[in-house]
Amino acid sequence: MATSTTGGSADAAPRVSVLGLGDMGSAIARTFAERGYRTTVWNRTAGKAAPLAEAGAAVAATAAEATQASPLVVVCLLDTAAVEQVLASLGDAVEGRVLVNLTSGSPAQARGHARWAGEHGADYIDGKIMGDPPYVGTPNIMFPFSGSREAFQAHEAALKELGTIAYHGEDAGAAAVEFMAQVAVGYELLIGFLHTLRLVRAEGVDAEEFTGRVAASMAGYPPLLESMAKAVKTGEYGPDLGSLNVQAALMDDMISHRESLGVEAVRMREVKRLMDRRIADGHGDQGFSSLFELLPPRG
Amino acid sequence: MATSTTGGSADAAPRVSVLGLGDMGSAIARTFAERGYRTTVWNRTAGKAAPLAEAGAAVAATAAEATQASPLVVVCLLDTAAVEQVLASLGDAVEGRVLVNLTSGSPAQARGHARWAGEHGADYIDGKIMGDPPYVGTPNIMFPFSGSREAFQAHEAALKELGTIAYHGEDAGAAAVEFMAQVAVGYELLIGFLHTLRLVRAEGVDAEEFTGRVAASMAGYPPLLESMAKAVKTGEYGPDLGSLNVQAALMDDMISHRESLGVEAVRMREVKRLMDRRIADGHGDQGFSSLFELLPPRG
Repeated sequence: MATSTTGGSADAAPRVSVLGLGDMGSAIARTFAERGYRTTVWNRTAGKAAPLAEAGAAVAATAAEATQASPLVVVCLLDTAAVEQVLASLGDAVEGRVLVNLTSGSPAQARGHARWAGEHGADYIDGKIMGDPPYVGTPNIMFPFSGSREAFQAHEAALKELGTIAYHGEDAGAAAVEFMAQVAVGYELLIGFLHTLRLVRAEGVDAEEFTGRVAASMAGYPPLLESMAKAVKTGEYGPDLGSLNVQAALMDDMISHRESLGVEAVRMREVKRLMDRRIADGHGDQGFSSLFELLPPRG
Repeated sequence: MATSTTGGSADAAPRVSVLGLGDMGSAIARTFAERGYRTTVWNRTAGKAAPLAEAGAAVAATAAEATQASPLVVVCLLDTAAVEQVLASLGDAVEGRVLVNLTSGSPAQARGHARWAGEHGADYIDGKIMGDPPYVGTPNIMFPFSGSREAFQAHEAALKELGTIAYHGEDAGAAAVEFMAQVAVGYELLIGFLHTLRLVRAEGVDAEEFTGRVAASMAGYPPLLESMAKAVKTGEYGPDLGSLNVQAALMDDMISHRESLGVEAVRMREVKRLMDRRIADGHGDQGFSSLFELLPPRG
């Protein structure tokens, strides 16, 4: 079995193994090794392990050997297919281990891995990564986790080495839900922003100057989002952003302006349709957040 | 002709007229009156003028009379149709005046008003209002202006009484462009956010707690938007948010997850399509901002 080379206090130091040495797995393994963990690494292709060995990590010949080496086994592979292949190769080595799987995947896949782990005598924690490899080991990368609470608490200190962490509950799928929902909010903003940069450019406005003004106005969104979430929760919809009666009057101008420039208007047309329906249903005095009532799945 | 009742220094005080006394027009007129401007007001239906008269404003019997009373005439009506009707009633009264039209409308409508003003011997400034009536007179309401630079500079001090102001250039349509583009970015974020609240609720996650985490992560967006705008301007697209190769792998999971819950996925499918096209074109090493290249109108 591989052993650590992390120096004098190696026997007392906590042990961790990392399966998968892509950019992210390598950054994780390096962080553990540099902070004195007895770190064992494995990668399907051996070449990637060399820099980690130099950083003090032991290199295992197989995933099973790496898994046997530590109570905590961090899995960071390309995709779920790779995870399933590696898990299937572990045999008895996984028994009694805590698997922390950081590989990208859906909530359903995470729940499937948790079942597999349970059937093989292991604890399972699913994690997702919000940030880039250079930020591993700093507070500027966020890891939502979910799954076995007991295992999370037992290894919280080690996981905290990686960045800002949060625990989202026993449902192994919860970390993936959080990740996908956060990414979706970001992508909705960003793709809408890029479409609107087409609009400002078509109108001869400097895109960077416009963006500076958008960036300045972003400070107003956190309290607005929080008041909207509260309205959604209570069903009490005040006229946020003005009443729908007033807002709807603006939408036709916005849509025809975008169309006149050849700028995409999918969301603006949807918002107008939703506003018109709320007004027709007698809710024209409510605000933007009340559109939630019409969105699928209802109830 | 109506005269001001603003007290002792009334003759020296600057004069301003306000046409239209809805919630916003009333708040504007009140702000001017309370700050010592010789304020003249007019509204189609006379009842709304009474509270302004109590606040010290003179009440004109017609829009033309109000326009004659002051060098600066602020127009704040329901819509462009109302503006056109009132402008047509002004006759010679408008000559030599500066019209500041804050009524909601498109860039093309603003440009039309500017032409009309030019033909009738008046200067024209278009303005839009980003905020609600209670904030008039505070820094927490934003007024983008555009049109005659000379007229704007001559009346900048008066316009500053209303809130935070910015001048967007001689093109009378520029304030409406700014307004519509800013509103669009906000609506894109907010409708995407509401759809994603459906997702988190369907997954049993507390909407308010999720929103708290979204709100906390918003601080990361201003620098990201600014780096994206820079990439769009220079055409040098680094791997922001990770390379498209990596991001695209995630999109199928996100889309199928949303579809499995009955949550809308229009934008996520669009983003996936765009990512796939960029990758097929050999740009898989670039980032999210490079999707701009595929958005209409191109060039």
